[in-house]
Amino acid sequence: MAGTNLLGGMAILKGRDAEHVRVLRMKPGEDMIICDGQGTDYKCRLVYADKEQAEAEVVEVVPCPAEPSVKVTVLCGLPKGDKTDYIIQKCVEAGAQEILFFRSKRCIANPDMPEKKLERWQRISEEAAKQSGRGIIPQVGWAGEFADALNVAAHRELGLFMYETGEREKLDEVLTAHREVKTAAIITGPEGGFAEFEAKLARIVGLHLCSMGERILRCETAPVVALTAAMYATGNLS
Amino acid sequence: MAGTNLLGGMAILKGRDAEHVRVLRMKPGEDMIICDGQGTDYKCRLVYADKEQAEAEVVEVVPCPAEPSVKVTVLCGLPKGDKTDYIIQKCVEAGAQEILFFRSKRCIANPDMPEKKLERWQRISEEAAKQSGRGIIPQVGWAGEFADALNVAAHRELGLFMYETGEREKLDEVLTAHREVKTAAIITGPEGGFAEFEAKLARIVGLHLCSMGERILRCETAPVVALTAAMYATGNLS
Repeated sequence: MAGTNLLGGMAILKGRDAEHVRVLRMKPGEDMIICDGQGTDYKCRLVYADKEQAEAEVVEVVPCPAEPSVKVTVLCGLPKGDKTDYIIQKCVEAGAQEILFFRSKRCIANPDMPEKKLERWQRISEEAAKQSGRGIIPQVGWAGEFADALNVAAHRELGLFMYETGEREKLDEVLTAHREVKTAAIITGPEGGFAEFEAKLARIVGLHLCSMGERILRCETAPVVALTAAMYATGNLS
Repeated sequence: MAGTNLLGGMAILKGRDAEHVRVLRMKPGEDMIICDGQGTDYKCRLVYADKEQAEAEVVEVVPCPAEPSVKVTVLCGLPKGDKTDYIIQKCVEAGAQEILFFRSKRCIANPDMPEKKLERWQRISEEAAKQSGRGIIPQVGWAGEFADALNVAAHRELGLFMYETGEREKLDEVLTAHREVKTAAIITGPEGGFAEFEAKLARIVGLHLCSMGERILRCETAPVVALTAAMYATGNLS
């Protein structure tokens, strides 16, 4: 609803949004849901439409039911090639609040971050958000270095650090103990996983080092699986 | 371990397996794990190796720890293009026992099933199984018509039918009530979802019609998300 203003109980639709009304051949009196892209749905009734714009009366304002009760930030070590695109698309479908990439010790991808890439990532998020009926368009961005990613995660109520080896907590025990959190972060590694000192740092800043069982997940699969587990455990997958 | 025989406490490695020993420059006395592809690991000690074959003594026989306690059959309405490949790779990583495709009312893909496709699918499964450290190579196959898929699912202890609309059970409640099952099936639809009569049939044969929340998942995402939820709920993701 980039072209929509909500003013005093009326929604004024212009540009693409007005065109959408026209394409759907909607008639005055018909109902529609306008999503503000920030988690709120406006149930509206069309009052008037012409070539340039449409006006609808706001009947009810409700939280978008597709938005999970927990806002999860997914932080991924930058993978090679178009695995980023896959991660973005699937994590948006699975309910992520935002998706951030970062550089870590074992990243083999080129971490140059031209604006163009960020724009493309955001477009993938927007498309996936619309297709899956999300109430927001999750932000996709570049967190920076490994330490920056830790810093982001440490500011969430629950911070999970998915790690393949050594002493870890069980993911289900950690999630069960944090069912009521409103914010969470999930950190997953690049192709080569994390260096030992990175895992150590994660532990020091208070993140939960977690295993996801004995099966080794690809770097582009792990974030989606971990996010799905978090959504399931917090009652957001039913 | 296609080229390995296990006979009377000795493992005889030939072909690719013997070559693998050679490439790794293993010496007699070194330990290795030989997986029989059916969920059992043989902890072995190398006794002898030459150009043609290698012999190892079996020290211990244990169930492969990467194999989940529940054998899940994933049944998917045939999607278009290479979405099948994605479904196979991700479901193998996530722990599926077998992956079967079927034709349903709203399938838009061409359901001709040349042998070549089955071979390619099986190769994708094998590669994903090896990469993720699975103890088996999940079978990939063609179930046939929708009714055949129902029939397969009805023969599992728990049959889940993922459906986007109407009266459904909550996935977490169903899974929580069936935590101890040893076999399960998950049915997901093609791009266009299921027809109402298909859902009705699924209910009649005793499957659980389940929702996965308000977010609409793509047909290639739904099986992976549902399987992950099942693995999580049965304690196979920690």
